[in-house]
Amino acid sequence: MDNKNYQQLTRTFLRLSRFSHLSAIASWDMFAMMPPGGSRARGEALAELSVLEHQIITDPTVAQWIDAAGQEDLDEIERANLREMTRLHHQASLLPESLVEAKSLAGSRCEHAWRSQRPANDWQGFSQNLKEVVKYSREEARLRAEAKGCTPYDALLDVFEPDMTSAQLDVLFADVKSWLPDLLNKAVAKQSQRQLVAPVGPFPTSVQRELGLETMALLGFDFNGGRLDISAHPFCGGVPEDVRITTRYDENELLSALFGVIHETGHARYEQNLPRNWPGQPIALARSTAIHESQSLFFEMQLGRSQGFLKQLIPAVKRHFGDQGAFEEANFMAWNQQVKPGFIRVDADEVSYPAHVILRYEIERALINGDIDVDDIPALWNEKMQAWLGLSTDGNYRNGCMQDIHWTDGGFGYFPSYTLGAMYAAQLFSAASQALPDLNAHIAQGDLTALFDWLRQNIWQHGSRYTTAQLITQATGEPLSSRYFREHLESRYLSLPR
Amino acid sequence: MDNKNYQQLTRTFLRLSRFSHLSAIASWDMFAMMPPGGSRARGEALAELSVLEHQIITDPTVAQWIDAAGQEDLDEIERANLREMTRLHHQASLLPESLVEAKSLAGSRCEHAWRSQRPANDWQGFSQNLKEVVKYSREEARLRAEAKGCTPYDALLDVFEPDMTSAQLDVLFADVKSWLPDLLNKAVAKQSQRQLVAPVGPFPTSVQRELGLETMALLGFDFNGGRLDISAHPFCGGVPEDVRITTRYDENELLSALFGVIHETGHARYEQNLPRNWPGQPIALARSTAIHESQSLFFEMQLGRSQGFLKQLIPAVKRHFGDQGAFEEANFMAWNQQVKPGFIRVDADEVSYPAHVILRYEIERALINGDIDVDDIPALWNEKMQAWLGLSTDGNYRNGCMQDIHWTDGGFGYFPSYTLGAMYAAQLFSAASQALPDLNAHIAQGDLTALFDWLRQNIWQHGSRYTTAQLITQATGEPLSSRYFREHLESRYLSLPR
Repeated sequence: MDNKNYQQLTRTFLRLSRFSHLSAIASWDMFAMMPPGGSRARGEALAELSVLEHQIITDPTVAQWIDAAGQEDLDEIERANLREMTRLHHQASLLPESLVEAKSLAGSRCEHAWRSQRPANDWQGFSQNLKEVVKYSREEARLRAEAKGCTPYDALLDVFEPDMTSAQLDVLFADVKSWLPDLLNKAVAKQSQRQLVAPVGPFPTSVQRELGLETMALLGFDFNGGRLDISAHPFCGGVPEDVRITTRYDENELLSALFGVIHETGHARYEQNLPRNWPGQPIALARSTAIHESQSLFFEMQLGRSQGFLKQLIPAVKRHFGDQGAFEEANFMAWNQQVKPGFIRVDADEVSYPAHVILRYEIERALINGDIDVDDIPALWNEKMQAWLGLSTDGNYRNGCMQDIHWTDGGFGYFPSYTLGAMYAAQLFSAASQALPDLNAHIAQGDLTALFDWLRQNIWQHGSRYTTAQLITQATGEPLSSRYFREHLESRYLSLPR
Repeated sequence: MDNKNYQQLTRTFLRLSRFSHLSAIASWDMFAMMPPGGSRARGEALAELSVLEHQIITDPTVAQWIDAAGQEDLDEIERANLREMTRLHHQASLLPESLVEAKSLAGSRCEHAWRSQRPANDWQGFSQNLKEVVKYSREEARLRAEAKGCTPYDALLDVFEPDMTSAQLDVLFADVKSWLPDLLNKAVAKQSQRQLVAPVGPFPTSVQRELGLETMALLGFDFNGGRLDISAHPFCGGVPEDVRITTRYDENELLSALFGVIHETGHARYEQNLPRNWPGQPIALARSTAIHESQSLFFEMQLGRSQGFLKQLIPAVKRHFGDQGAFEEANFMAWNQQVKPGFIRVDADEVSYPAHVILRYEIERALINGDIDVDDIPALWNEKMQAWLGLSTDGNYRNGCMQDIHWTDGGFGYFPSYTLGAMYAAQLFSAASQALPDLNAHIAQGDLTALFDWLRQNIWQHGSRYTTAQLITQATGEPLSSRYFREHLESRYLSLPR
């Protein structure tokens, strides 16, 4: 079979995947291992590699191979792979090398300075760096938007979430906005009537780590191909063959690190179970950021905070930290399903979480489209936090717009993925419940095999073979709907305890 | 000043240094962090990067720039840098890309398999992989030897130790062979008359680690630009801005990890104090592997096992592990200056160490020159171990020729550096003692400032500015001599206690 152009492309993408491997490990190291003095050299090394990767993927020969491969005799898998290669090539080709490098360096600088600026509540200092990042992100958005014929923000959104538009998002989020405030108020009111016993610490880091590792094992994490470490901002990194998840420990707080680990384990299992028969090919990569978040939230929220799974956790928690009132079944369940609006997104419960995301989406869209500037962010943030969650962030930058590193590297367009992920997760769990009889009973018995098999067959094994819409329709019988997310929240937070 | 060709070269080497940075961190990770399942992908990623680096440095344009830069108006520093660039370019240009990649992959495979083959004493399995490695190393040696007009082994030696030849080595090692067996016997006999109290364990890993970190601080390690971790085979890796040293712990044995840490700290301080004003340039790199080993052995043997330094260690050891008879001063000194011929090179005392090195040198030279084959190694090893140290390794591959990973990645030509390093270390310590009045008294008081300043001024700050011969002659007033090493061993092991 003559598909020599396609073969040239597969060799090029295999080579690129090897460079991505090194970039992924060096980035993980930067957050989990690197001493401060290594920062500048590491930033320069990673920027140099990103320039190289950009050169390889935008080489004019790649464009020629893509054109010619389109005429070759390819099977369905190869066509899907060619579609993904084309997308990545076009995405990269829109940006000049100088912009790629400048954006990478500005991002490293902004993130590094943030580490000390956040504790100092130094918005003045931070905003100077952020303006640089926004300048390059706007330039990127402008170039992408011109080529695609859409708004600048939609052009960035498409990088993370192919085919998603802000028009679609506005419909989905308008629906959420129509019912979430009421649901949130009712859940808070309902929970206000009960008296909960708080777990009493301290909870030594080393013991928390042991419990985390045990829970990862229960959730099927493959330790032959991955690790658990510590970083200030938890994440899932590395490569499918060697997945690195991180968490952070607070010795006075038991559950934040544990559920962080469960969340990252969801990301990790997706990565560890991506298809291995197309090494280094784009078709073997995770489908999108929203599908990735759907897996972490499936683990953390749908499965992890379900009655059955929480019941499974209790003996392990007692084994590590001794028996105490807080670990009594009804209390432990209620403690882990609390709704408590707060400042920090990553600590938010699943009912108030969408408020954080929609707030951030509305601000970043306006910022990238040029409707507001960096200096306008704190006031807007405060206004929206007041309106959604009744909290003031006036002058409190560190717990407001400086709370995480998401914008420091110019990752505008990523945020909606979190709530899209929550919606996908609810829709997938609903479909799995239909397909698997007695799913909740199995979970309560610690038997997760059928559930993970279902995820493997419906999501993990497909990589990027299908579009997101195809993948979800095949798995659940219908396109994305916010209905399942609403039903899930109502059932868990407003109905009588089951 | 018109030196645009030289400027092109500095940009190219800066770029190369950034790729080396990523390779160094990914290699450290491979040994210190990576789970087994990541091995194949990592090996492929590192091989891909080594091919890229090879392409960049062997690009014909680099040769043109080198030729043209030779005619440009360069100062002394730039000339020295150009000399080092030229050396690296020529070394790389002699090897085809396919050989670089094949050798890198064969090395990764052989090292990875060794991890399980060594415990299983599986010489049959190991030798199959080693034959592959030797095949590529011989091919490399042949290509280098043809270009240089020397024997194959000398051509490899020159890569690690520029300007060193086996003719010079034979003279130095013949001298060592003429006095070492007698010195070894006398030292063993002298020590056999005393009764030593062994430290009583267990020594928990976490406490050993604390003692190691404290000792690193005492030795001036900069923790803002480095870390201490664990690996099966201790090493010093990373980059000058971020030096990664490793050790391994045995809870029944206190001193092996501690002196391993002291050894690696010597390597680390050399790296951390290399010149920073020529970023990414070859002139800013460590001079050679023997000079590197001279720094680690200076720290471990000359300084670390001196009476004064051992006395300094005692309070710290007692603070971490409590008081016991073994930590009484005379006993602790004697315990740390024991001469005990054994199988394992990395555990060897400094008197029997040269026997391990010369044995390995003679075998690897014969192997690379084609006088013997891989299958001949075990018998030769046994014969030489019997002759030198009176120990049989017949059938005991795991403690014989499979004891470490040095040959698995084709690093033939490296071994002599250890004993050259011991000689350089003794010669440097002797010169420092001449230059610094009351050096031993200062060491005994824990005041190491003057000694480290002397090393910084005479070795560290020069990077590769001078040739090895120039560097040593400037620092010590004469070229390399084995005399100081002999005097050091005689003084420490045969004279009356000082």
